[in-house]
Amino acid sequence: MANNLLKGKRGIIFGALNDMSIAWQVALKAHEEGAEFVLTNAPIAMRMGAINELAEKTNSLVIPADATSLEDLENLFSKAMEHLGGKIDFVLHSIGMSPNVRKGKHYTDIDYKFYNQTLDISAGSLHKTLATAHKMDALNEWGSVVALTYIAAQRIFPDYNDMADAKSLLESITRSFGYHYGIKKKVRVNTISQSPTVTTAGQGIKGFDEFINFSDQMSPLGNASAEACADYCVAMFSDLTRYVTMQNLFHDGGFSNTGVTQPVIEKFGNIE
Amino acid sequence: MANNLLKGKRGIIFGALNDMSIAWQVALKAHEEGAEFVLTNAPIAMRMGAINELAEKTNSLVIPADATSLEDLENLFSKAMEHLGGKIDFVLHSIGMSPNVRKGKHYTDIDYKFYNQTLDISAGSLHKTLATAHKMDALNEWGSVVALTYIAAQRIFPDYNDMADAKSLLESITRSFGYHYGIKKKVRVNTISQSPTVTTAGQGIKGFDEFINFSDQMSPLGNASAEACADYCVAMFSDLTRYVTMQNLFHDGGFSNTGVTQPVIEKFGNIE
Amino acid sequence: MANNLLKGKRGIIFGALNDMSIAWQVALKAHEEGAEFVLTNAPIAMRMGAINELAEKTNSLVIPADATSLEDLENLFSKAMEHLGGKIDFVLHSIGMSPNVRKGKHYTDIDYKFYNQTLDISAGSLHKTLATAHKMDALNEWGSVVALTYIAAQRIFPDYNDMADAKSLLESITRSFGYHYGIKKKVRVNTISQSPTVTTAGQGIKGFDEFINFSDQMSPLGNASAEACADYCVAMFSDLTRYVTMQNLFHDGGFSNTGVTQPVIEKFGNIE
Amino acid sequence: MANNLLKGKRGIIFGALNDMSIAWQVALKAHEEGAEFVLTNAPIAMRMGAINELAEKTNSLVIPADATSLEDLENLFSKAMEHLGGKIDFVLHSIGMSPNVRKGKHYTDIDYKFYNQTLDISAGSLHKTLATAHKMDALNEWGSVVALTYIAAQRIFPDYNDMADAKSLLESITRSFGYHYGIKKKVRVNTISQSPTVTTAGQGIKGFDEFINFSDQMSPLGNASAEACADYCVAMFSDLTRYVTMQNLFHDGGFSNTGVTQPVIEKFGNIE
Repeated sequence: MANNLLKGKRGIIFGALNDMSIAWQVALKAHEEGAEFVLTNAPIAMRMGAINELAEKTNSLVIPADATSLEDLENLFSKAMEHLGGKIDFVLHSIGMSPNVRKGKHYTDIDYKFYNQTLDISAGSLHKTLATAHKMDALNEWGSVVALTYIAAQRIFPDYNDMADAKSLLESITRSFGYHYGIKKKVRVNTISQSPTVTTAGQGIKGFDEFINFSDQMSPLGNASAEACADYCVAMFSDLTRYVTMQNLFHDGGFSNTGVTQPVIEKFGNIE
Repeated sequence: MANNLLKGKRGIIFGALNDMSIAWQVALKAHEEGAEFVLTNAPIAMRMGAINELAEKTNSLVIPADATSLEDLENLFSKAMEHLGGKIDFVLHSIGMSPNVRKGKHYTDIDYKFYNQTLDISAGSLHKTLATAHKMDALNEWGSVVALTYIAAQRIFPDYNDMADAKSLLESITRSFGYHYGIKKKVRVNTISQSPTVTTAGQGIKGFDEFINFSDQMSPLGNASAEACADYCVAMFSDLTRYVTMQNLFHDGGFSNTGVTQPVIEKFGNIE
Repeated sequence: MANNLLKGKRGIIFGALNDMSIAWQVALKAHEEGAEFVLTNAPIAMRMGAINELAEKTNSLVIPADATSLEDLENLFSKAMEHLGGKIDFVLHSIGMSPNVRKGKHYTDIDYKFYNQTLDISAGSLHKTLATAHKMDALNEWGSVVALTYIAAQRIFPDYNDMADAKSLLESITRSFGYHYGIKKKVRVNTISQSPTVTTAGQGIKGFDEFINFSDQMSPLGNASAEACADYCVAMFSDLTRYVTMQNLFHDGGFSNTGVTQPVIEKFGNIE
Repeated sequence: MANNLLKGKRGIIFGALNDMSIAWQVALKAHEEGAEFVLTNAPIAMRMGAINELAEKTNSLVIPADATSLEDLENLFSKAMEHLGGKIDFVLHSIGMSPNVRKGKHYTDIDYKFYNQTLDISAGSLHKTLATAHKMDALNEWGSVVALTYIAAQRIFPDYNDMADAKSLLESITRSFGYHYGIKKKVRVNTISQSPTVTTAGQGIKGFDEFINFSDQMSPLGNASAEACADYCVAMFSDLTRYVTMQNLFHDGGFSNTGVTQPVIEKFGNIE
């Protein structure tokens, strides 16, 4: 069902590790809709992933970049513009990692060096990406930047740990930079707050299956899949959504505005 | 632990039916804190309730009033000011009723005459109360009006039915009238969004016990009791909170900002 | 730039009065994108408008309906399905009217009969539309219903008067019905909260020009136009946004998340 | 108008620099209400301030502590409990500083080392304070922690720069830690989002006077003063608000829910 929605648009897609990644699905859909883009990921993530397979499928170039390094980002934008033949129209930021989660540190007892890394990798990287683009004037007017986030930025999900703080920071950066880039170049910046999605990153988390089940049963439409999220990203990159900026957009089957559902409440019948 | 926080203040308390009512607890606490006030309720509710017992305990006058009747409200404010010897400092609005809930109508198939009643009784009554006070100049500067609400105004709880819409309307009236009354007389208007509370009104609702359990387990501090809510109302009536207005204040043990808790997630382990 | 995004989809569009109407622009865009639809408006509005001109341009049928009348709505859905040859995929609700605003009643002194009309016309009509569709099973799975709203539902704009309350109610109905229709048929229901737009309805309001200016200067991208809003509606009707439901979506150039802008702050320099 | 509201309670107050500080006013009110507490500030801030004068007035001990140093915080809690004779009941966190603001760096061109400092000083310090208390079991059950924040965490105020991001992070930490401390010890953690206040910290900011004017005219009750904020802190430390946790509480004269006011709109009349 391709509609050439992104025909003529040039993009940069961060974070495609393998076919479970949302970024992977975004690349497939964006390609289908006529976009040309560059794929990027941290050098270390690339070794584990299958990004070259995706590059082939979507006829795109891979440029490694550590999104916390201003030098790498400058190289990325420079090479991307050269390769794609012009300024960039859309950027997907799908980056998040918490050493505290990985090392099993409890939120009340986190390691602060790790905490800084969580914030820098998962949120600061968006600021650095935007600041680099801004400085290089690398985005076209009405360009669209989307970062993926999660509702833990608003409400506590205990196992999400310090990633909740990182996502709050990410959403604040979205508003702050969205303001300045909007005023200056009509570039829009938004976050999409996606249902919990089974990805390689999620798989390791304790109790993740239970959590996916809970979320699914609390969502009137069920959890949104990575493919559906990719569709929504395409809509946000297209010209149909030009006046949406500085927003956090829930793509979650209604989870965010549901207090309880019938299947969930039924589990609370025989508590003494 | 009385502290004379409301000494010298005059109030009107709507909605005390019996000792399970939040309004009942508010009356007890306000009396303890030195306030003088008038109790009011719909004539029909009074016949079922025990309001005279409360009036005796708190040395207060009972003035019946249908809060949807401008005539009754004018009579109420007039008699209250006469009895208390001056303008009013605080008002508690604890009024809600849905004929659709009572008659077991599903939200997708409500009776629209009932719907208008739900909205008029549960939300319009606040507008009428404030409009009457405003017209009669019956509130002192920095007076405080509190209406009780529930988080169903923001998120869906299916059994709450059209009361969710009524509470949304109530919160909007709070903001709208709070603006105008604030500008004109520095009167502040707020809603307190309380944990589900076992009251006579709640008892009849299908699945209410399960719901109370769910809410309790989703609240880091547990559900807030009617007594605790009364304490919070006292704080909102006092001079300690003069610059809080047009707000919806969650008094819910943390429920509103909790996405899931450990005891809740554990129920989702063995779903195939 | 048509992309056949709505090819094969059938719709009903409420509220196109003339070419200043957002609904008018939505009809043009939906036609461009391949949709077939029926236009509807209140019989009285039709006499003033130019809806037949739009019907010709978009090759669509006009079916008059008072959206507060269940009988009219049933007739509308029945005729629309017959004419379009199947169930409906999208509905635009663009209906709002306040007799209190028209008659110049102040919010603190509204007429309550008018108030009921404001609520019934501007919000109740959405409930009735959805209830009629639900009862007749008139919407396809994954159908999309969009109602237009304004940020006055969240924050006070004094001249917006009781329409603020109506919009809060509208947004609550969106969540409530979105839950039930989502569970049952995967139909999604959302509101788009649009920048203030110069329409025939807006023109009469006192201070409207000043207000449009203020809003424009408080929006990093400027006010969104009716045409841009139509684009966004198309995105919400399309399959790209299937998992977005029960949401209020700001389409406002960033206004909603902007506290102040440089041009606005500069006006506050020489206040003594 | 002391009411012994905090009688028997022990506290720690961070951030009293001089009599313009909100923390200074909180100390005066808390003393008036019968609390005993320790004052603390960064060693460097103390040299500039007049904290010893406040200590005399409130009969309290001063313990210097850099709130980003776990060692200092451990020493602070240890000495405070020893001096006050028991566990702590309330904590005020009034700490914020941005080297980027001080050095005049634009948000789109910040120094990332400074950014880390902004986040660590203004938000991380709350996590470290709570983690230290949690580890030492230094807070009594139902203890209350309040951190001061600003609405820039939700909406952009361009001159507020990277402090907006820090305040978003602070509010997220409040929710996250509030969850865990609530579950474990019924300790509640909230932020108060205060009107812009003329303090020593604010004075240096470009356009601050214009900003105070704008905010005052956009607030139905006007800007809240430091004294009024201190009253609200007392209410939040008291037993009247036990079930309020993980919340961001606006204390702003209604600013947060006001879209525009008459005096503001009037400035937009003669724009060409």
